[in-house]
Parts: sequence; C-alpha cells; structure tokens
Amino acid sequence: MFYDHLSVEDTKRWGYENALDIIALGFDPDLTNIFLDTEYIKTMYPTAIRAAKKINFSTIRAVFGFDNSNNIGSIFFTSIQTVPCFLESIQRKSNVPCLIPCGIDQDPHFRVTRDIAEGLGFMKPALVHAKLMPSLAGSEKMSTSTKGEDTVFMTDDEKTAKRKIMNAFTGGRVSVEEQRKEGGNPEVCAVYQYSLYYFEPDDEKLAELHADCRSGSILCGECKARLFEKVWKFLENHQEAREKAKDRIEEFFIRD
Amino acid sequence: MFYDHLSVEDTKRWGYENALDIIALGFDPDLTNIFLDTEYIKTMYPTAIRAAKKINFSTIRAVFGFDNSNNIGSIFFTSIQTVPCFLESIQRKSNVPCLIPCGIDQDPHFRVTRDIAEGLGFMKPALVHAKLMPSLAGSEKMSTSTKGEDTVFMTDDEKTAKRKIMNAFTGGRVSVEEQRKEGGNPEVCAVYQYSLYYFEPDDEKLAELHADCRSGSILCGECKARLFEKVWKFLENHQEAREKAKDRIEEFFIRD
Repeated sequence: MFYDHLSVEDTKRWGYENALDIIALGFDPDLTNIFLDTEYIKTMYPTAIRAAKKINFSTIRAVFGFDNSNNIGSIFFTSIQTVPCFLESIQRKSNVPCLIPCGIDQDPHFRVTRDIAEGLGFMKPALVHAKLMPSLAGSEKMSTSTKGEDTVFMTDDEKTAKRKIMNAFTGGRVSVEEQRKEGGNPEVCAVYQYSLYYFEPDDEKLAELHADCRSGSILCGECKARLFEKVWKFLENHQEAREKAKDRIEEFFIRD
Repeated sequence: MFYDHLSVEDTKRWGYENALDIIALGFDPDLTNIFLDTEYIKTMYPTAIRAAKKINFSTIRAVFGFDNSNNIGSIFFTSIQTVPCFLESIQRKSNVPCLIPCGIDQDPHFRVTRDIAEGLGFMKPALVHAKLMPSLAGSEKMSTSTKGEDTVFMTDDEKTAKRKIMNAFTGGRVSVEEQRKEGGNPEVCAVYQYSLYYFEPDDEKLAELHADCRSGSILCGECKARLFEKVWKFLENHQEAREKAKDRIEEFFIRD
C-alpha cells in the first residue's frame, strides 16, 4: 500500500505488526516470504521501472480517479505493486503462474498489472479478492473517524473487544416488544456480518441464526454475547500465537 | 536520468562507462562516491517517497511539459533525482549544504527540489549548470539521428575523431576566395565552440583565433587540424587513464 499520511517509519512498524498476525495464523515459513517494499526495493525497483514505462498517467487517472493534484508517489505506486506478480518468474528465470489474494480495494493495481504483464513477458496474475472487514458501526468499511471503536483489533484485550461488540450496530428494533413481534434485520446487522464472514463456519447454524433473528426469537444482547464468546476464544489463542511469532519473524522476512 | 528508451541493463552499462570517464579525469576516491540509482535504491527510496508526497502531477506537468500520455516512471523520477541533495544530511544527521553540478537539462528536477527541500527539513540545494556539449553539426545539442558523427566520444580512436572534426560544420564561406575576403563566422562554428568550451583555456589565444577567423586569415581546414591536434592529445591521455580506471572502479562505487 502507498500510505500518504504515514511516515516510512510508521509504515515499517505497521508492516511488522501485520506480519505478526500472518505468522500467528500458521503460515509455513518454508513456503512464506514476507517483505516490506522499502526493505526489498533493490530487488523490486528494476522490474518496477520496466512496468512504469508501460503505464501512463491516463491509465492511472482513469483507474483510480486521480487528478493533477495527486502526488507522484501515489501515481507511481502501481509499478511497485505489480512486482510481486513477477518476482517468482524472475527469480526462477521461467514463467511461473501467480495468484494474488488481496483486499478488493487493491484490485485496481492488479487490473493494470494484467494489462501490461504479457508486454513484459510474464503471465497475467490471477486474483482472489477478500471483502473488506465490515464495520461494527454498520457501514461497509471501517472508518478512521470512529477511532477504532468500529472494529475489533487483533491486539484488543478482552474488555475492549467486549465493549466494541456490545456497542455494535445491529438490525434490532427500538424495543424488545417490537423485536419479538417484528423480528430483527440481519442484512444490515454488523454482528450478523461478523458471524457470516468470520465466526460461524457452519452454514446450517448460520441459517438458524438468521431465522432466529428474523423471527424475533433471539435478541441483540444475546446475539452479541454469543459472538463475543467466539471472538474472544479466537483472540486469546491468536494473541498467544502472536507473542510467539515475535521470536520467529526472521524466519519469514526477506530483505535485500 | 530516466531513460525511457533504455533497458535497466543498458543504463547500468552506460553508468559504468560514464564512471570510467569521471575516474579518468582525476577525481579523488576518498572524496568521491559514484552510485547507480538501481544499485543504491534501498538507501534512496525512503527519502524519494518523502519527496514524492510533496510533489503533485500539476507541478511535474508544468515543469516538464508532461501530459497524460507520459509514463508514471518519468513522472515519479524527480523524487529520485532529489535524493542526492539530501543524502549527506541524512547520513551525517545534520543539515549539510549541497552543491549540484549538472547539465542544464537536469535543472528542472532541482528547481522542484528547491521548492520542497525546506518542507522536508533540508536546505535548498545550490546548482552550477554545465552547458550541453555543442554538436559538431552546428546545432546546439547533440542529436541521436547523426549516429554519433556530430560529437567526439571519449572512446573514439584517432581516425574516427579526425574524421568527425574534419567533417564538422563551420562558419566558413563557400569558397576560399570569399573567406579570405569576407572572413568566417566563429559564432555559428562548431570548431570554434569546441575551442571556446574545451580546448583553448587561454582567453588571449581564443580572442586571437576569433580575430583570425573574422579577418579571413585562417581557413577552416587549418582551424580543424589545430583543433584535432588538441583533441587527440587530450583523448590519448584520457583513454590511457580510462583503461587504468577499470581497475579502480570499486574504489569509487557505493552500493546498498
């Protein structure tokens, strides 16, 4: 990512924090390389330049909705973002197919990459998109204006995680009476979204939750408490693994 | 420089060739660091990004006359070009004044650098401009369309250098008779420009040459022969020093 509002030092710190989460999730160090653009740029830069020569400002403007006021770092950044698609091919000196899993917000960079890949002698990368994590405030995407209260962080303690979930926006009615009668609306409910995306892998149980909400047989407080239990179970294990990851970080990082 | 038409490998090769000339001219290795952007990018990149965030496309468009068809590498490149102005300050962790000697064509990058330097916490760089080497074909700048016949290269052999100088565009008249009567025009003469810029350090002798041309007492053939003598004397010594520089290149180069 190109972070306009963060210093190089801050992006580096965030990069390491994110790496701890990835390692804690159980990635195999023999199959995983993690790098920061700033630390791997000597390897990346020659290919980034080759890519940059194939991309003009018209394309960037159209793809990202940029105008003349955008800074030249953000304009150039797509060239850097293309490189991981080609690194394996370059290092093995043969054409290796590449699958990029990414947040859907990063898709435009790879659309551009697909357009230029063959001109550079590589295969087009394939993509799997992850939806952005829904906001506990009920909007589609987390917002910085809520100061982190609309999302549970991997590092939140039990009390904080509980507070955030208990304060989440739901599809509940204004009163218990109304909800028992009319039922809730899981489609707009942040708590239901968390279950749907992360915390209820069993489709049948999810359908049951959906029906119980619709029928008014489960109220928001109970639903939040159930979710919190699952979230905290995950976080407790994750945070333990994350602590251990701190000693293993060098098994994963590659640098120039 | 950002070379749209050259591969990374070619720019690297040219960089080394230019370094040999710099070393051959007698630079002191204890006071001289030479680097290629591609080999020193890990050091440069964090500062380039900081600079990039302060420069928008409007500025680049106005300064370089770019439009939407320019590639994003050439748009970004000014950020890279700013970095040498700040490197010494960064490495010494204190503000060090910087003087950039450069061809006048590189000036726009440093104009932009001067605009953003203080916002990044550095002093504005000072500049000394070198004029571009005049063309032996009589135009102001060398052209690629003449395939190198309009300039003497540092690596040209005696025969080649002689041919190029003897074929140079001069300010001579159409016939000897006319030239003896009317005199030549040193202002438009490539041979005179070479003397003026490079091969006649003595102002009195230069004034004499100017007068002799104007009065018709010296003809172009003689003037070219005199120039060639000086050029070849320089080249012969330079090429010897250039050969020796090949063994000393590592005394000068810095890499990440």
